[in-house]
Amino acid sequence: MHRIAVIPGDGIGPEVIEQALLVLDKVSSKFGVRFEYIFIDAGGCAIDKYGVPIRDEDLELVKKCEATLLGAVGGPKWDGLPGNLRPEQALLKLRGGLKVYANLRPAVLYDELKDSSPLKKEIVDRGIDILVVRELIGGMYFGPKGREVKDGDEAAYDTEVYSKSEVRRIAKVAFEAARKRKKKVTSVDKANILESSRLWRETVEEVAKNYPDVELSHMYVDNASMQLVKDPSQFDVILTSNMFGDILSDEASMIVGSIGMLASASLGEGKIGLYEPIHGTAPDIAGQDLANPIATILSAAMMLRYSFNMEDAAKAIENAVKIALKEGYRTRDIYTENCKLVGTKQMGKIICENI
Amino acid sequence: MHRIAVIPGDGIGPEVIEQALLVLDKVSSKFGVRFEYIFIDAGGCAIDKYGVPIRDEDLELVKKCEATLLGAVGGPKWDGLPGNLRPEQALLKLRGGLKVYANLRPAVLYDELKDSSPLKKEIVDRGIDILVVRELIGGMYFGPKGREVKDGDEAAYDTEVYSKSEVRRIAKVAFEAARKRKKKVTSVDKANILESSRLWRETVEEVAKNYPDVELSHMYVDNASMQLVKDPSQFDVILTSNMFGDILSDEASMIVGSIGMLASASLGEGKIGLYEPIHGTAPDIAGQDLANPIATILSAAMMLRYSFNMEDAAKAIENAVKIALKEGYRTRDIYTENCKLVGTKQMGKIICENI
Ligand SMILES: CC(C)[C@H](C(=O)O)[C@@H](O)C(=O)O
Ligand SMILES: CC(C)[C@H](C(=O)O)[C@@H](O)C(=O)O
Repeated sequence: MHRIAVIPGDGIGPEVIEQALLVLDKVSSKFGVRFEYIFIDAGGCAIDKYGVPIRDEDLELVKKCEATLLGAVGGPKWDGLPGNLRPEQALLKLRGGLKVYANLRPAVLYDELKDSSPLKKEIVDRGIDILVVRELIGGMYFGPKGREVKDGDEAAYDTEVYSKSEVRRIAKVAFEAARKRKKKVTSVDKANILESSRLWRETVEEVAKNYPDVELSHMYVDNASMQLVKDPSQFDVILTSNMFGDILSDEASMIVGSIGMLASASLGEGKIGLYEPIHGTAPDIAGQDLANPIATILSAAMMLRYSFNMEDAAKAIENAVKIALKEGYRTRDIYTENCKLVGTKQMGKIICENI
Repeated sequence: MHRIAVIPGDGIGPEVIEQALLVLDKVSSKFGVRFEYIFIDAGGCAIDKYGVPIRDEDLELVKKCEATLLGAVGGPKWDGLPGNLRPEQALLKLRGGLKVYANLRPAVLYDELKDSSPLKKEIVDRGIDILVVRELIGGMYFGPKGREVKDGDEAAYDTEVYSKSEVRRIAKVAFEAARKRKKKVTSVDKANILESSRLWRETVEEVAKNYPDVELSHMYVDNASMQLVKDPSQFDVILTSNMFGDILSDEASMIVGSIGMLASASLGEGKIGLYEPIHGTAPDIAGQDLANPIATILSAAMMLRYSFNMEDAAKAIENAVKIALKEGYRTRDIYTENCKLVGTKQMGKIICENI
């Protein structure tokens, strides 16, 4: 029996989570394994209910589960609130509380979805299969921040800070992942300006010594943002900080055509993990059966793989998604001419049937 | 008579500067104005000659000029040096020393170069004409930075810090620029996480009150990096911090096809300005008459416009560049089938003739 904390969240969150749970139910019966779901409120809905993005007792509950499956949190409704009361704080509390320092964001171009990429055919034809390994519980997101007034001029600051041990553990994750892929790590920093980047680069170099079979290169973040558009096929694993990873993983997800397809896993030391789609809450289409549930379904697959060691079941889900695409089923966000347009529920159902 | 500090720098810097000076000579005779050039060593070449990226006395000389025209600085040769001895330090010293807080980076798609964009035809057909207004002498680039050891674990930090007065002056530049364009400012920040971004957003809102004719919207930086690829036509003026501006302006320059075409102006309170192409030193093609001089030539045009009030002369240069493109002349970086391939010198010559 596996115990899973389920956080539907806001906007389209509950709809896409519903489909992912149906897929897990199917896996449960097919693979003879039981899942227990503990539903937790977090994000805007928790603010509305309890006045906080996530209650401490709920965070404790989450910590006791083997894994967490999250939809999405946030929305314009809560944008005016002060920093510590925003829905996004729930994400930070979950990430920090679960100590999941390694955020894995695969950006893969599906053959069937080539036409949805904003990039030219000659570029996407070279293929895109990137794994962004983003540090998730350090840097500017968690460093000291505040305000101060000097000579009547108010100022605010955030601190980008990384220690060697923090860089070492995330670098290891990147090198280990590269070993199972094309054996190439591109570490992205701004070492020509930032002291934290220089420490990052030195430390990555040190870790690299233990992985002589993996090719390491360094790239400045400004250049990386260009290269991702110019020739994404050059990348295998991109290793980077929390802030740069936020920007680059979103860019990477856009070039493969649809953010509605992309899953993510956030891992720590043990088997615990936080799994969520990369997309947001999309309030404009919430509750209309329009959202693409695939990113969340693939996040559930990552959960089976990384937290429960169920590689076969993970593959079965991934395969079921591929079949649905091959058969021409598309939600609105990935729809192109001559395909079969389906809603959130029907897409979930089709994927379940393919398992 | 106008006194210009000329900093050729490293790599292709001297070649592209040479052509820009020939263009200025032509403007000089056509428009009956005299330019005096003060040549200054900065970057890697200054490190080789004097052991520092730029000498203090040279920085003083630059400050006494009305404007500075810079090629590019840096290269792998000097990458191993400690932070304060890198060629890039010359750039920071120049920017900080001249107090040029507003970096204007236009990213314009030329009709003739549409094929060089990595984006799909249907996207570029909507047009790209973005002005990135990047804060240039604040944020993580100039904030407190350093190292410290805690429990045997070395850490390094950089501080992203902005005061209201810093945000106010750069926001004004963006709104003023938008008034002369499509009257739209997109302010990019990470206000859901960073305190400095929240102060940024508040202050931009305040400044916006004085520009009721300009439409203001806010966008998170991760979303901006996606939207630039998805639909760049939605942007007019992008207003952002030093670090985010570094990343987004490079991305913007890539989507218009060639970074070899893009100029930049860095302005302060008075008429003083620092003008430079956006591209780097491209050591791999240096000294081979392969570099595209257009970005530097267009930077010279920006200098005439902003520092010398010579709008007609600026337009004459910009027009001369357009004619050269229309006639099919291309350096290697922007070459497509059926065009006429030319080198750095010939491109410069053709543009001079068109003035
Ligand atoms: C919602 C936001 C706080 C979050 C982040 O910046 O990490 C999101 O953009 C992400 O990438 O998961
Ligand atoms: C060379 C580097 C220090 C510089 C910067 O980061 O500002 C460059 O990338 C730029 O954008 O002008």
